[in-house]
Amino acid sequence: MPSISIKGANMPESPIRKLVPFAEKAYKANKKVYHLNIGQPDIKSPQIAMDAVSSHHLEILAYTRSEGSEPYRKKIAAYYHRNNIMVDENELIVTTGGSEALLFAMGSIADVGDEIIIPEPFYANYNGFATASGVTIVPVISKIEDNFALPPISEFEKLITPKTKAILICNPGNPTGYLYSQEEIETLAAIVKKHDLFLVADEVYREFAYDNLKHFSILEAKGLEDNAIIIDSVSKRYSMCGARIGCLVSKNKSVIKTALKFAQARLSPPTFAQIASEAALETPQSYFDEVIEEYKGRRDILIEKLEEIPGVQVGHPKGAFYCIAQLPVKNSDAFAQWLLEEFDLDGETIMVAPAAGFYSSPGVGLNQIRIAYVLNKESLIKAVNILKAALKEYKD
Amino acid sequence: MPSISIKGANMPESPIRKLVPFAEKAYKANKKVYHLNIGQPDIKSPQIAMDAVSSHHLEILAYTRSEGSEPYRKKIAAYYHRNNIMVDENELIVTTGGSEALLFAMGSIADVGDEIIIPEPFYANYNGFATASGVTIVPVISKIEDNFALPPISEFEKLITPKTKAILICNPGNPTGYLYSQEEIETLAAIVKKHDLFLVADEVYREFAYDNLKHFSILEAKGLEDNAIIIDSVSKRYSMCGARIGCLVSKNKSVIKTALKFAQARLSPPTFAQIASEAALETPQSYFDEVIEEYKGRRDILIEKLEEIPGVQVGHPKGAFYCIAQLPVKNSDAFAQWLLEEFDLDGETIMVAPAAGFYSSPGVGLNQIRIAYVLNKESLIKAVNILKAALKEYKD
Ligand SMILES: Cc1ncc(COP(=O)(O)O)c(C=O)c1O
Ligand SMILES: Cc1ncc(COP(=O)(O)O)c(C=O)c1O
Repeated sequence: MPSISIKGANMPESPIRKLVPFAEKAYKANKKVYHLNIGQPDIKSPQIAMDAVSSHHLEILAYTRSEGSEPYRKKIAAYYHRNNIMVDENELIVTTGGSEALLFAMGSIADVGDEIIIPEPFYANYNGFATASGVTIVPVISKIEDNFALPPISEFEKLITPKTKAILICNPGNPTGYLYSQEEIETLAAIVKKHDLFLVADEVYREFAYDNLKHFSILEAKGLEDNAIIIDSVSKRYSMCGARIGCLVSKNKSVIKTALKFAQARLSPPTFAQIASEAALETPQSYFDEVIEEYKGRRDILIEKLEEIPGVQVGHPKGAFYCIAQLPVKNSDAFAQWLLEEFDLDGETIMVAPAAGFYSSPGVGLNQIRIAYVLNKESLIKAVNILKAALKEYKD
Repeated sequence: MPSISIKGANMPESPIRKLVPFAEKAYKANKKVYHLNIGQPDIKSPQIAMDAVSSHHLEILAYTRSEGSEPYRKKIAAYYHRNNIMVDENELIVTTGGSEALLFAMGSIADVGDEIIIPEPFYANYNGFATASGVTIVPVISKIEDNFALPPISEFEKLITPKTKAILICNPGNPTGYLYSQEEIETLAAIVKKHDLFLVADEVYREFAYDNLKHFSILEAKGLEDNAIIIDSVSKRYSMCGARIGCLVSKNKSVIKTALKFAQARLSPPTFAQIASEAALETPQSYFDEVIEEYKGRRDILIEKLEEIPGVQVGHPKGAFYCIAQLPVKNSDAFAQWLLEEFDLDGETIMVAPAAGFYSSPGVGLNQIRIAYVLNKESLIKAVNILKAALKEYKD
């Protein structure tokens, strides 16, 4: 029998996938499961975007340009201008989700064996794209005690080698909810300029900043034109995860030219989704105001309730819709499985994401979980109650 | 300034892209350009698919499962059964176009430096996916004199090394239009089984077989369960290129398990497009009958007219909607540019794809072009007349 590739064997599985059979067992046992484990928001997509698709008049569902349709790219550029990110339609490539933008970025800047430094915990699928690209992720630990703030420069500089090609950050962070300040971004800008590295910023949660904090993009930092690559997506912004539209943004012409070759090989991003995403750019501000208000309310109640549980420590998210909670357990993997398999509170339980999958350093984060607050407040309160009761009962 | 990757620098550009600025020049000069260079059919997408999207009732455009929605996968499996390909819904993964299926297949079976043998001329983007994956394409030449039939086994066996992981064929072929016979597929089956290789078949043009020939899939060949991987797509079948839906099919469980990890990293194929593609499976047979009739008519007139031109030799396509024409020119790249830049017949000219980009052996195919018959008959006749007049005038 022919054998699969080493690369394929090394491709990581999602940290949540392992739990799926246990979730299915829970459903079979008629338990109600609150899903704190997923990044799929429960928020409605903007009506204007959904209507644009319903009222399409396409007779031929044709390829668009590989870099995305021109009218859509122009409107994206205008959106960035409104956000103080001064790029034009030729400085961005429409991709199939932020996911594809990440893949194109890695392929464009790093060869097999090259290194990208990423503060951990980080979005677990960075591992998948790195493995697929043959790139080595070098983690720099950020700590729950510091609320996952940017580690000191010295920690980055210790890790820079001739193979280092980039620093990759997620801002605001999945899974930490941390929002980097302007100062932190400028610190990173100084490091990457000093060492001639790229700074890749996954800004897919740009809009989700709370407490009147404003997101500061890497393309707002001065003099970073040659170094900055933004990864973006409509998935979370408009609760349109199924569209599969994102983009890669850079003022570095070689980066765009190179990423475009990857884009040309796969021909075109999805056409219906570009129609929806173009229309979504007309979403009224009131939509975002409501959504942000809702997430902020959820965060507040979630953090408050979590901190009432003895032995639980929580990172305080300032953005996105995740938080990391440290639990009084040894192995959150086993705990997450036990929650589904063994535990219930009046027939209800929760599914959480064990945080070890978000760390690349072995043995770190074993007692942490990620909670996504993509459920309404009432459900969140119930879910935290279940967690509290479970921790009382659990022995490891 | 940080530098892009070697891989990125090596990513090939599409053979047609180079001509785009010259096409733009032709438009500016108010020339009418007949596009024989593209794979975007002019055929309408099935109404039933377009309507399914217009009448969607989604409130949240959510991710689907990474392997594609279950109802859609079940219907795909039923489609395959109707085509004598006996797979179930767990033996296929819905991908973002056939393009992504190719990328997942290469990543799942080959490591950096591994080799895949492909009869040339072949679909140019195989080069892009191979470069992105670090895989070396080893071409085996098929000849216009043989109508691009399968090269003799001995030619394949000469090329097999310990690094060879697979043979990749496109059936029917882009750019050749060649349709492999059952005997040829069985010959390939014997080689891959003997040498423990994968046989990857890009069958995205399955439906486009003429002269009452029936497409024979690699999964119809006996005993190839462990070796066969099919690449498929809705792009051409339903003239739905912009959907970006394809699939990877294999009865080899390790292949599916591995490809699924690549799929999970990118989360989900596009949701609207899955709605369209699922509905497209209900397209009445009359749609295909008409489309095939139309293409067959186009092919007949195209080949007839091409063969009337002195010095032109044509491969006789039995499937897909392309043919390779060998011209009395030294360099079809320069000729294609000249057609756009310098030539017109009563204000009209043609854009063709120079065939060198479909060969990986250097210097081969320089006097060939690929013609896509995605224009109506009247336009095709005009286009071939232009070619005839141009060849009379052209000096190289
Ligand atoms: C930090 C981060 N980046 C990128 C993505 C990829 O999202 P998409 O491909 O849907 O744009 C996600 C999705 O959860 C994410 O959380
Ligand atoms: C032979 C072949 N394979 C694969 C593809 C990829 O098509 P898609 O990604 O639209 O399914 C094409 C498109 O032209 C093709 O001609």
